[in-house]
Formats: sequence, C-alpha cells, structure tokens
Amino acid sequence: MKKVARTEIPRKAIYRLSVYLRCLHRLENNRIHTVSSEVLAKAAGVKSTQLRKDLTYFGQFGTRGLGYDVKQLIEMISERLGTKSLQPVVIVGIGNLGRALLSYRGFEREGFEVVGAFDVQSGRFPKEAPIQVQSMKVIPKVIDEHLVKMAILCVPPTAAQEVTNQLIEYGVVAILNFAPIVLSVPDEVTVNNVNLAMELENLSYFINE
Amino acid sequence: MKKVARTEIPRKAIYRLSVYLRCLHRLENNRIHTVSSEVLAKAAGVKSTQLRKDLTYFGQFGTRGLGYDVKQLIEMISERLGTKSLQPVVIVGIGNLGRALLSYRGFEREGFEVVGAFDVQSGRFPKEAPIQVQSMKVIPKVIDEHLVKMAILCVPPTAAQEVTNQLIEYGVVAILNFAPIVLSVPDEVTVNNVNLAMELENLSYFINE
Repeated sequence: MKKVARTEIPRKAIYRLSVYLRCLHRLENNRIHTVSSEVLAKAAGVKSTQLRKDLTYFGQFGTRGLGYDVKQLIEMISERLGTKSLQPVVIVGIGNLGRALLSYRGFEREGFEVVGAFDVQSGRFPKEAPIQVQSMKVIPKVIDEHLVKMAILCVPPTAAQEVTNQLIEYGVVAILNFAPIVLSVPDEVTVNNVNLAMELENLSYFINE
Repeated sequence: MKKVARTEIPRKAIYRLSVYLRCLHRLENNRIHTVSSEVLAKAAGVKSTQLRKDLTYFGQFGTRGLGYDVKQLIEMISERLGTKSLQPVVIVGIGNLGRALLSYRGFEREGFEVVGAFDVQSGRFPKEAPIQVQSMKVIPKVIDEHLVKMAILCVPPTAAQEVTNQLIEYGVVAILNFAPIVLSVPDEVTVNNVNLAMELENLSYFINE
C-alpha cells in the first residue's frame, strides 16, 4: 500500500531529520520562533548545505533572511516521520534486555506506545507489572486489535528468524532488532539493528589502539 | 599512547568483526572446528569476498580447501577487539534508560563489567541495588581505581556535553552516547551514538511510506 507521489528520502537523511526535530523542539522550548539554516545546522552537527538539501524533500520553504519557522518545520518533519500520533509497538522476548526496555518509560514521550509484551515463558512474569507479559500465542490478536506495524525484537538469536517470520505474517513491517543475528526479510519490511554489545566492542577496539 | 605498527581497521569493518565473532561462537558451541569463508560469510550476511578482505587485517591465514580454524579465529578477533579480558565501564546518568541498562545483565557475558553508576541525585537510589548509584563527585576515584576508559552516557541532553568534558578529563577515551545530542570531543576520543527513539522514528517513516 505504498503511496506513490512521495519523494523517497534516503535512510541517512531520515536519521538527520530526527536530529533536526530534536534541535527544533529544544528551540521551541526556549521560545525561539525562527531559526537560520546555519544555526540549526550547527546545533545538529551538520553542514548548512546538508541541512538545506535535506529540507528540499519537503519542497521549498523558509524565507531568505528570515530563516525557518520553528513550529512549521516541527509539524512537517513529524508528519513525514509518522510520529504525530502515538505509534503502537510490541516487544517480543522479555529476557534481560526486553525487561530493561519494558521498564524504560521514555518511548511514549517520543511518540511510541508499547501495547504488548510477549515471551515464550509468559507464566514467569508477575501479573501486576505495568504491562502484562503475555503468551506468544496472543501476538496476532494484539497486533490486529491495535493495528501494530512495528515490533521490538529481543528474543535469543536462535529464535529470532522464526519469530520474525511470524511477526511479518501477522502484519508487522518494521522491526527494531536487538538479537545479534542478520535477519532475512522481504523487501517491503524494514529492519534496524541495535546491538549494544557490538557498540561497546567497537569502542573497545579504539581504546586498544 | 597509540601503538604505531597496527594496521588501522575501518569502523565498518570492526562492526563486521563483531558479527563474525558471534557467528564463530555459535559454530564453536555446535562443536564445529573449521569453517569455509563461504559458510561464515553467509551466516554473517556478507559476501565472502568482503569477509576475506576483512580478515586480511590479521595477515594471511586459513588453508585453501580447509577453511578457517574456528577457535584460532575467535582468539584473533577477540584480541584485536580488546574483549579477551573484562573491560571496565561506568554508566553516568541513572534516569529511565540508565536504570534499564543497569538492570540489563547482558554486558558481562559480552566482556564488559559495569564498575560504577553515577547520578546527580544519587541519594534517590536504594542502597541495596546490585550496583550502588554514587554521586558524580566519586567518578574520578572510580575511574582511577578500575582504570576505566569507557563510559555509557545516559544523562539528559542539556547535561551531556558538560559531563562528557569531565569524563574525558578523567581519562575516558570511548563513550557510548544515549543522549540525543551531537557531542564535541577531541580526535583521540571515540563516540558511538545509540538513540532508540531515533531508531523507532526511522522505522516509523518506512511504515508510513
């Protein structure tokens, strides 16, 4: 169900849009209503030519000499990123990391609502948790009910591909993968990988140098 | 104190070494002692030409027709990544995310030991926690004591740059930054950024497409 008319934005540019959005929110909180491309670019750690190029994905706007309207730019970027309304997500695999993410209350502030948490051993978890950990069998029901398109995957690497296949079958099209394996998915599904241990290992190399 | 003789490995190759290492550990657990570059490359999700190129950073090895010795390759990569012995790290900023990371027990399994946790409001935290959250004032003492070179930064974005400057002054040379801002650091310091909300936002864009 792709919309056709949209210009496709490269993935790296989308990350930068997220950075711009955060900078703009800080400006808004400080009651700054307009910002030049130079100032915004500096806050985001990019060149102003880069910023201007990224913003051309939204068509031409900003008045020469006056800069960008902070509020308007926030609206446009949020809409494009799809975070204007709360996006429902599920967390699958409640081991150490899944539990940590479940206890992390920062997602909602950023536009994401955890509507379900699932584990093969759902019986192990206390019923009074803020989000009840449910059996994997309930996943399709919850996904249907909340129109979930996005999943956070924290299962062990040995189970990751199988669970991914199921999630895709149920309608998930975007996966934030914390399992340290390379997932095979069809073209229409997007996977972003986060591997904390690998990030640390990567840093460790530079320490040793 | 850079060692001079080492070939410098590009950052992306270092991430791939981490992936190879994980694949090799799985092979080892399954009692597989040798592996061809084709099989290892497939498990890691890269082309075998890429794998062979990456391994040339270690000099020539592997016997044609026999493949790589799994154990030997694990040793070499671990040594190069600096994860053969437990690497001490500190976590600074124990808000929602810092707390979640503190409760995540997966770091040690991967070669990292959390030797200190710090927050400006250290008094708020229960004394019986597995790692006592201490005042920011104690950071230099703990860093000295454990020869810490690596920090995980989870402070609010408004405090991130100042805390970073302090950590660098105390001797930290590698930072895993969870604060959603671009940190300015000297050349000899490495920063890896992880922003969960941005990863989700990025996926969100692809859902909307």
